[in-house]
Amino acid sequence: MAKIVRKSSSPSSIKGRFDGDFDVIVAGSGVAGLATALFTCWQGNKVLVLEKASELGGTTRKAAFWYWVPNNAAMRAAGTKDLKKDCIRYMARLSRPEVYNAKAANFGVPEWEYSQYEAIYDNASIATETLRKKGALEYRHCDFVPDYWAELPEDKAPKGRVLLPKDARETMSDGGEVAIRTMSAAAKRDGVDIRVNHRVQRVIRNSVGEVVGVEVDNEKGKKLRFFARKAIVFCTGGFTHNVELRKNYLAAPVFGGCAARSNEGDFVFIASALGAQLRNMNYAWMCPIVFEKAIAKDPALIGTFSPSGDSMIYVSKEGRRVANEKLAYNEMAQVFFRWDGARGEYPNLILIAVWDQRSQDHSASDEYGRFIVPPGKDDGHVIKGATIAALSNAIAQRLARYENVSGGLKLAPEFENNLAATVARFNGFAKSGKDADYQRGERQVELLFNGSVAPSPSAPNPTMYPISDTGPYYAALLTGGTLDTKGGPKTNVSGQVLDDQDKPIVGLYGVGNCVASASARAYWAGGATIGPILAFCHLAADAVHKERKKRAI
Amino acid sequence: MAKIVRKSSSPSSIKGRFDGDFDVIVAGSGVAGLATALFTCWQGNKVLVLEKASELGGTTRKAAFWYWVPNNAAMRAAGTKDLKKDCIRYMARLSRPEVYNAKAANFGVPEWEYSQYEAIYDNASIATETLRKKGALEYRHCDFVPDYWAELPEDKAPKGRVLLPKDARETMSDGGEVAIRTMSAAAKRDGVDIRVNHRVQRVIRNSVGEVVGVEVDNEKGKKLRFFARKAIVFCTGGFTHNVELRKNYLAAPVFGGCAARSNEGDFVFIASALGAQLRNMNYAWMCPIVFEKAIAKDPALIGTFSPSGDSMIYVSKEGRRVANEKLAYNEMAQVFFRWDGARGEYPNLILIAVWDQRSQDHSASDEYGRFIVPPGKDDGHVIKGATIAALSNAIAQRLARYENVSGGLKLAPEFENNLAATVARFNGFAKSGKDADYQRGERQVELLFNGSVAPSPSAPNPTMYPISDTGPYYAALLTGGTLDTKGGPKTNVSGQVLDDQDKPIVGLYGVGNCVASASARAYWAGGATIGPILAFCHLAADAVHKERKKRAI
Repeated sequence: MAKIVRKSSSPSSIKGRFDGDFDVIVAGSGVAGLATALFTCWQGNKVLVLEKASELGGTTRKAAFWYWVPNNAAMRAAGTKDLKKDCIRYMARLSRPEVYNAKAANFGVPEWEYSQYEAIYDNASIATETLRKKGALEYRHCDFVPDYWAELPEDKAPKGRVLLPKDARETMSDGGEVAIRTMSAAAKRDGVDIRVNHRVQRVIRNSVGEVVGVEVDNEKGKKLRFFARKAIVFCTGGFTHNVELRKNYLAAPVFGGCAARSNEGDFVFIASALGAQLRNMNYAWMCPIVFEKAIAKDPALIGTFSPSGDSMIYVSKEGRRVANEKLAYNEMAQVFFRWDGARGEYPNLILIAVWDQRSQDHSASDEYGRFIVPPGKDDGHVIKGATIAALSNAIAQRLARYENVSGGLKLAPEFENNLAATVARFNGFAKSGKDADYQRGERQVELLFNGSVAPSPSAPNPTMYPISDTGPYYAALLTGGTLDTKGGPKTNVSGQVLDDQDKPIVGLYGVGNCVASASARAYWAGGATIGPILAFCHLAADAVHKERKKRAI
Repeated sequence: MAKIVRKSSSPSSIKGRFDGDFDVIVAGSGVAGLATALFTCWQGNKVLVLEKASELGGTTRKAAFWYWVPNNAAMRAAGTKDLKKDCIRYMARLSRPEVYNAKAANFGVPEWEYSQYEAIYDNASIATETLRKKGALEYRHCDFVPDYWAELPEDKAPKGRVLLPKDARETMSDGGEVAIRTMSAAAKRDGVDIRVNHRVQRVIRNSVGEVVGVEVDNEKGKKLRFFARKAIVFCTGGFTHNVELRKNYLAAPVFGGCAARSNEGDFVFIASALGAQLRNMNYAWMCPIVFEKAIAKDPALIGTFSPSGDSMIYVSKEGRRVANEKLAYNEMAQVFFRWDGARGEYPNLILIAVWDQRSQDHSASDEYGRFIVPPGKDDGHVIKGATIAALSNAIAQRLARYENVSGGLKLAPEFENNLAATVARFNGFAKSGKDADYQRGERQVELLFNGSVAPSPSAPNPTMYPISDTGPYYAALLTGGTLDTKGGPKTNVSGQVLDDQDKPIVGLYGVGNCVASASARAYWAGGATIGPILAFCHLAADAVHKERKKRAI
């Protein structure tokens, strides 16, 4: 399939014929696009969904699709308290720690952020229940899953907010496929017109400047024009795969990420051309990723949510541990981007996971982006050595392949010696169960993602076991990546895109990773992407439904 | 003076009368604005300069105005080699270390960056000599000043690139005032029309969409419209004082910065409304700053370029050193923003400089943003204590004043004990002359900014001397800040602002901190702001001069 290239985002004029007319046009078919389309069509609107890629589902299809829904129906049924003020406090504390003020009415965050947190709390459960009742997305309650910051005193409901598509497998890894299947089936059942291989290039404005349509290129290179009486809702994802945008906006020099390959920041261009403000452009939903898969632009790349293995450590090019390997993925990812202001380099840009046969035998899996994979699975990224010396040598050779794209990153001469010392020190921690350097395994989220380990001999801390004195040894190159970005046009809680005076651009909406998230750098919990997105889909659908019909002149 | 507030940046139509017409209109009167105006007027154009503030000079007036000019005339006269390829290599190595490739023709950086480095090398000296010959800016050669990364093997001309306004004082701190004086005098002499208290709100486009003028509000609230036959050049500085832009674009959660208070990112809005691409929005020219001055929005705030004092250390809220205090300022600033992914906080957001009577007596100065100031100077930011215990207590009290704006940052319970241990460890390093933790004083730039120290007793390392066992002790709260930001609309080397297809927006130019810098995060040397800016002013003036005259319909 030839890629449909991006062309000018400059808005087009109303003059010219149309290839179809609808009440509402939705661009994108991940969870945001499908949920918005469903809510909108259930209100009686004629809806068109345009998907750039050749299959439905965008990034959502690759996701586990946990969804974080504060004060959800299952919590309420179980009597688990999740008060609004407390939930907003938790979001504010993590999103803007530098100005968080426990005593202030708004917790120190600006009105925009506060209103977004409030909208999430008030609407995520409503959206969730609506989807469930309509048979578009049934769920099961993951009441054992903790928030990623469950230990913070500000988290008053540390477990219970996470839901999962009902038919997802026991390991909870395929929720995205299930959700896209059930949601798109409901959309088709209920009359939503869905077209793949249609890339929205720009919007069409009528003579008074209202957004009333889109111009699209399809896979045959044909330009199509669609009219939308009420509104256009963009749900086109972030800019993970636009190198220029990544480099010029993100706080971290990432090599790539896990979003659908079609997430190229289209809405940044399209909305900017209409005078939209951009917000939260500096942050992304982040995760460690396998460096070689990112460089290869592997469309199947999944974030290393689960840094599995107990007899496993990450070391730097100096052969030293630099962080708690089991840190929640969004936080671990940021370790790769620490800047060394004395040497003028990112010393951790690639870290090396090292493990032994125990972890290979007992912690391998092809789910949750694990780098320790079972026999028979693609292990092109795994480096092997019979001894620490042989492994070090093999790592050096592997890094040499990439020196043209990694800033010349190579092992320090003392790598092998340091690695031996690092293993010895780690093994001491593993025996005692206490990681005196990085406190590995002391938080709930670390156990959640620890994966399976050898049942015997067991260890005082299930995240750590001494690395064997004898080989074989294994290694993989890791870096930090995006799941997707979280910046884009600023919207109000109804999803209306705002101009530089905070006034809505009439007819233009956005939901999901294509618009600005008020979470700033925070990753509140598993599903903190999708749960809030559902709230905003519901709000946008309500607002779009109430839009007056616009004139095509 | 009432502030002239920003209004909509949406472009205005050509319809309506004009209050003046010019060949070229320049917005902003810092070094970029004045140099562009001068170069342009010397080519025979009728030029108007519009300055938003009530005085000329913008951020430049506050600067030392070192200017970094590769292969400058003084170097050539002295026989100091500075080859083009080597100089570009140095810029590329520091600006994009994550992709720098020593073997590639373009050193691994994209074409846009490479073309910008090339333009700097080729034009900074031409611009400098033109200004000198015309009597607008004479200079002296600071051949003893090293680049900030003089020790890197990629720096083949580690000294010699820095120039300074000829009449700047011996300490080189008042170059900005001198330069603004001589440049604005030349501009007036040569017929440039300069108006202060005129805020450009938006551009005016003619019927074919070309940028042909500006709408301005003056201090009386009157709207004025000026026509520009050839072009508008924006030189309006960065977005240091726009909290929203800072928060949503910068990689670091800064509290403020040192740019002129009028640097509020106007050009981000004005150019975005025309479909410009934004680039390098994540990075800034950074420097440690005195936290309390930043919070007070002190318009006289100067970056702590010189972290003076030998018996002086920075400690965290835990009472521990976390970095080499003498690191080049742009690098030290970034230490404040390290993220702790286990605790969900910025543990270094405020660091505490601690010094004793020796440093107070011998390292005080009111230049280069020093926090150790002489008697009689404003020392409202200085915290005092007769003993370490008393000082610790006073620091805790001072921090408590700010807990509503600092994310509640407070001293750890173990601060006082840790501080005593930290002082003891530092004192050992000072005695031996070797800082085993952070290598303080081992690089040339650290000596350049060390400031004066007590001549006797002397120490093996002039940046370190044991902190006294007896009080009094002094402290100051520091954070990281911007000198100014370095993101904005993308331009080509002629200063033309580019749309989303990399095509120039006809009639619209930008130079200086209001447009995107290809330096990314790097601060190549002292004067790495102003030297390159002069190159781009010269190039923009050439391009603007050649613009055809546009129609006012």
